Amino acid sequence: MPNVFGKLFTISTWGESHGGGVGVVVDGCPPNLPLSEDDIQPELARRRPGQSEITTPRKEEDAVQILSGVYEGRTTGTPISMLVFNKDARPGAYSEMKEKFRPSHADYTYQTKYGHRNPEGGGRSSARETIGRVAAGAIAKKILSLASKVETLAYVSRIHDIAMPPAEEVGISSDSIEANVVRCPHADTAEAMIERIKEARSKGDSVGGVIECRIRNLPVGLGEPVFDRFEADLAKAMLSLPATKGFEVGSGFEGALLKGSEHNDLFENRDGEVRTRSNRSGGVQGGITNGEDVVFRVAFKPTATILQEQPTVDLQGKETTLMGRGRHDPCVVPRAVPIVEAMANLVVVDHWMRQHAQNRLFSF
Amino acid sequence: MPNVFGKLFTISTWGESHGGGVGVVVDGCPPNLPLSEDDIQPELARRRPGQSEITTPRKEEDAVQILSGVYEGRTTGTPISMLVFNKDARPGAYSEMKEKFRPSHADYTYQTKYGHRNPEGGGRSSARETIGRVAAGAIAKKILSLASKVETLAYVSRIHDIAMPPAEEVGISSDSIEANVVRCPHADTAEAMIERIKEARSKGDSVGGVIECRIRNLPVGLGEPVFDRFEADLAKAMLSLPATKGFEVGSGFEGALLKGSEHNDLFENRDGEVRTRSNRSGGVQGGITNGEDVVFRVAFKPTATILQEQPTVDLQGKETTLMGRGRHDPCVVPRAVPIVEAMANLVVVDHWMRQHAQNRLFSF
Amino acid sequence: MPNVFGKLFTISTWGESHGGGVGVVVDGCPPNLPLSEDDIQPELARRRPGQSEITTPRKEEDAVQILSGVYEGRTTGTPISMLVFNKDARPGAYSEMKEKFRPSHADYTYQTKYGHRNPEGGGRSSARETIGRVAAGAIAKKILSLASKVETLAYVSRIHDIAMPPAEEVGISSDSIEANVVRCPHADTAEAMIERIKEARSKGDSVGGVIECRIRNLPVGLGEPVFDRFEADLAKAMLSLPATKGFEVGSGFEGALLKGSEHNDLFENRDGEVRTRSNRSGGVQGGITNGEDVVFRVAFKPTATILQEQPTVDLQGKETTLMGRGRHDPCVVPRAVPIVEAMANLVVVDHWMRQHAQNRLFSF
Amino acid sequence: MPNVFGKLFTISTWGESHGGGVGVVVDGCPPNLPLSEDDIQPELARRRPGQSEITTPRKEEDAVQILSGVYEGRTTGTPISMLVFNKDARPGAYSEMKEKFRPSHADYTYQTKYGHRNPEGGGRSSARETIGRVAAGAIAKKILSLASKVETLAYVSRIHDIAMPPAEEVGISSDSIEANVVRCPHADTAEAMIERIKEARSKGDSVGGVIECRIRNLPVGLGEPVFDRFEADLAKAMLSLPATKGFEVGSGFEGALLKGSEHNDLFENRDGEVRTRSNRSGGVQGGITNGEDVVFRVAFKPTATILQEQPTVDLQGKETTLMGRGRHDPCVVPRAVPIVEAMANLVVVDHWMRQHAQNRLFSF
Repeated sequence: MPNVFGKLFTISTWGESHGGGVGVVVDGCPPNLPLSEDDIQPELARRRPGQSEITTPRKEEDAVQILSGVYEGRTTGTPISMLVFNKDARPGAYSEMKEKFRPSHADYTYQTKYGHRNPEGGGRSSARETIGRVAAGAIAKKILSLASKVETLAYVSRIHDIAMPPAEEVGISSDSIEANVVRCPHADTAEAMIERIKEARSKGDSVGGVIECRIRNLPVGLGEPVFDRFEADLAKAMLSLPATKGFEVGSGFEGALLKGSEHNDLFENRDGEVRTRSNRSGGVQGGITNGEDVVFRVAFKPTATILQEQPTVDLQGKETTLMGRGRHDPCVVPRAVPIVEAMANLVVVDHWMRQHAQNRLFSF
Repeated sequence: MPNVFGKLFTISTWGESHGGGVGVVVDGCPPNLPLSEDDIQPELARRRPGQSEITTPRKEEDAVQILSGVYEGRTTGTPISMLVFNKDARPGAYSEMKEKFRPSHADYTYQTKYGHRNPEGGGRSSARETIGRVAAGAIAKKILSLASKVETLAYVSRIHDIAMPPAEEVGISSDSIEANVVRCPHADTAEAMIERIKEARSKGDSVGGVIECRIRNLPVGLGEPVFDRFEADLAKAMLSLPATKGFEVGSGFEGALLKGSEHNDLFENRDGEVRTRSNRSGGVQGGITNGEDVVFRVAFKPTATILQEQPTVDLQGKETTLMGRGRHDPCVVPRAVPIVEAMANLVVVDHWMRQHAQNRLFSF
Repeated sequence: MPNVFGKLFTISTWGESHGGGVGVVVDGCPPNLPLSEDDIQPELARRRPGQSEITTPRKEEDAVQILSGVYEGRTTGTPISMLVFNKDARPGAYSEMKEKFRPSHADYTYQTKYGHRNPEGGGRSSARETIGRVAAGAIAKKILSLASKVETLAYVSRIHDIAMPPAEEVGISSDSIEANVVRCPHADTAEAMIERIKEARSKGDSVGGVIECRIRNLPVGLGEPVFDRFEADLAKAMLSLPATKGFEVGSGFEGALLKGSEHNDLFENRDGEVRTRSNRSGGVQGGITNGEDVVFRVAFKPTATILQEQPTVDLQGKETTLMGRGRHDPCVVPRAVPIVEAMANLVVVDHWMRQHAQNRLFSF
Repeated sequence: MPNVFGKLFTISTWGESHGGGVGVVVDGCPPNLPLSEDDIQPELARRRPGQSEITTPRKEEDAVQILSGVYEGRTTGTPISMLVFNKDARPGAYSEMKEKFRPSHADYTYQTKYGHRNPEGGGRSSARETIGRVAAGAIAKKILSLASKVETLAYVSRIHDIAMPPAEEVGISSDSIEANVVRCPHADTAEAMIERIKEARSKGDSVGGVIECRIRNLPVGLGEPVFDRFEADLAKAMLSLPATKGFEVGSGFEGALLKGSEHNDLFENRDGEVRTRSNRSGGVQGGITNGEDVVFRVAFKPTATILQEQPTVDLQGKETTLMGRGRHDPCVVPRAVPIVEAMANLVVVDHWMRQHAQNRLFSF
């Protein structure tokens, strides 16, 4: 089940960039949740192409239809099928890519693995696949918004070598993130980032960056050691996204530069609650949430498609060159923000259900 | 199934630091594999405590018994149960830890999640749990050694702020890794690392570090998009290990500092094979191995147990202090090397089987 | 994942009787399989309503669309999403059923389990859900037809108390099964069955029956003990179908009336192959296929909807009566034949892939 | 994971008839459950060999050890590993069976599937594997006994052609079942059954039978349509047991002889509860428990091992004969009673946890 994610709140995505459409089936959704397309569409709008001057001009409204699992405005506990038809597909634009492998794309590996592939727009390897994830994540978000105080906020913390100041200093809110097209909550940094992206595009080049995400107000106890640790499932969720190259939680790679006496998060009693004085753990200890913010970062490589001629090989393995074409983002990171949030919310809901089933059901 | 890992080559680990023992059941192992305890014991020796002057002095021979799944020296395809009894347990040493939560350990989260825990030596959250992983990984390694040319080599690339030169310059081999107790293949760096660890220990402190791992000679085509990408499963495997805080593949977080024109791996035809001129992808493109070395890094935090008095809270949430005791590693990274290799080999075999089942079985 | 079936060849069904539509996502399908709607539609035609005088008159063309996973007429190894829109829905017809529980239907249990349900036509509990299964099964059938000699033939062996002679005497073929609307390969029996169904309908009553299924030309070795035995997965597949009350393989319940000396299937060497002289095992021994025909039977209860007034209770638990309405089959068994075949073929392909992954991949 | 059963309350069994031992790992057990070997041993005593004059004389105490997951007498929510060493193994007794396939045993299919097998006592295909199931089932039983009023009672309802009167007339209790060695709650029938078994044994022959099982006091709402229906998971659980040939729930195969008007279970309000006047549904409607007793039956074939000379083939496919030897049960059905109960209790607990996770956790 390579296209299925989650144990209890499960999503199954399908679709290619230029096939009939893309979609998702959500299995295991709690019943009685008020739900309509209006809950899904805003999240899709945040990831859709053409949303701003720094994204691909491909025009897709990404209008979602809910085909099952909802009756009279509330979920029934049965599978929720959601569908977005592809509109602005230009299959003809990909004839050259059918024969030649784009560097650092998945063309060669898909071709070799499966022996047959849909080359149009990258087919299944296109980031368009993430529509299903975002649609499913919107349901998870709705659950959390109605049944908890959990708030998941992702934002662009770095583009190329332009990094924002530490989040603790900046102050993070949904409004400050959405205040600019690059989704960096620090206005000055955002401006510089936008310039850098435009500059790259003007040269037919691309840039990458880092997304930081904070999950606030989680209960203590989510995460299922030893393999399904909370951060392990987050790591898998993030590395399953196109263009990601790294994941870290809490102190991350920098944490390895500290000594134990510097790194440990000391417990204290704060207003009757057990809390830690620092949060280098990133909200997880032993694979289980400890009540602090879960903080993690995801590294995205620069977009592989650049509008330059590059050496490559063709289907027969013969060396050739390929000129980048098509409508692409010079930087995928701003549009990846709602995708990171979606995957995080899916992990939260799934683990909430798992925790409840084993540890909060029976009393002896 | 939080203690089960893998889809086809599946492991199920069990056991606590000071319970009766630790072990693993391997389900789905191919039959006819020559196997005995002699294949397992050397890998366990690489992770066992007391192996050198820079590890914990706890004395455990970690003698493994194979209880099922092998007949007349070859596997039968049925579950392989492997067991290591705990010997040098000192449950009495943990009476204080029963009442007080050790900072940056899993005591508090386990207590809150489950409401009841085995506090001795960290119970299930102890790194002793990884014995089962290493034993299972030794079987995966044996499969790969007999049926492929795949070679998985992990090594310590950084301890605290002491980093070895790039692997490409050093040259990596099993011998150079095992040539010193810190498992860094660069002799001079290794010496400095060992000093740093000893220095930390002498101050009752601890240090962390980074392990790099290379998987060589993989076939093209392993990895199951979209969720079970090869690097996604590696990321989950690594973040499921105690004390890990980050994972990156190929260019990783540094890759976000490059432009697309600098980052792309250009294809070429090398001696009749499609290869890339560089390997910033880290051997995976679109979640699928591309025939280059898979290269990834794992960040480990400094050991949480330090021999210093630290503020904390107790079971009732009352603030108190705790003096670190017990026999612990001042740095877990050298002993984590065989564990990282084990998890990597488990991912490889599992994905090999998955790839074969879907894409190499039927011809139409 | 209650709506997901299979381990490697996985299907995920969704949809309600009167919602937007019904469908299925097939994950793990081997690539390069020639596939179009023309492969799916004939199987759907065999299960669709209104196909004959003894089925419900509901008019549904059940025209299937393949939305993903196929490119230029061949599968790509990525998820195949298939969709059938509902046409002849009459939601208004179900207003009474919204308030009153139909006897021996799933109304009461769905209402109590989920707290909210789609009552129209039974919602998710409708046999209309099986469209997704049949569509997916058609793909499995295509795989088997191109890559093996496996042939799966289900047929009605009993309606009410009218049973056909033993299959060995009758001779079973696709043609003889499809020669009549009741799908019994014995013409005389078929005629009597049809009469019995018409008679029941004329009285506003219903009848049940038994479907027998034979899977021919299976290789030796399919089935994964101890839990995923071939017959265990068949049993689950069949008992997951609406209206089924029993499953038996080989000698089944009658087998318990024989002594060991009468029941054992003696091995012989037939033309160089190991075969059994009898087949009371039903083609499976120890949970693994032995090369003989897999033979199993499934019991279906009489349709719960009858056009008579019956006592029942309403949403508030108050006793009342309900007059059966709607367009229903007086006997579901003839239309269940392609569904049983579909589920059987899904089990075969899934197990074929599992067998190869573990036992036919590596040589030592 | 062919040796793993359950989604949330998961068991993983291992071991062969004459290897080092047999055991099970239980993953997902709720914490704080009082548990010791004393809870397990009585159930193992009910299935152990040598317990009465009508079972095999093999002497095994089947003393179980709990190696993990329990601390100070209560479960910790971590994996529970349980182990039984094999004692009275006589590997030498199986030299002939190494070369010749026993009729209607799993020797031939295991040999062909895996290419290598443990032939001693049937290896993994031995019913000795069920020790792990019974040990795990004892934990499930303990959970249900402390946290619910659920009671699962299996009993022998038929041996060969000797059937007991309907359970409703007999009255079923744990005491009446355990009152005799054949585990039939009707004393007169039990006596005749015992005679029949002895008679078969005296002739070197064997007999089969039917076990009926009732699960009382289940809540409404267990079962996960569409694939993981309660009865579908029961069917899989039962058909995964050695020697089983059939499963039916409620009216079963006989139900197909009734008309809808005769078969439907009419709802009524009984003392404020919605109940059905009859129980031909067998306690499940639409795959979900309806609050009535879940009633199912399992058919067991006669023991394949008989003390007679039978024709067969050898490893090379050459025809030969084999004289049955070894210590075997002339009828496995009485010892299968606790195994059926164990599997049923595992299904109940697993579904209870699933139901709560999805449908009883969040309120909107």
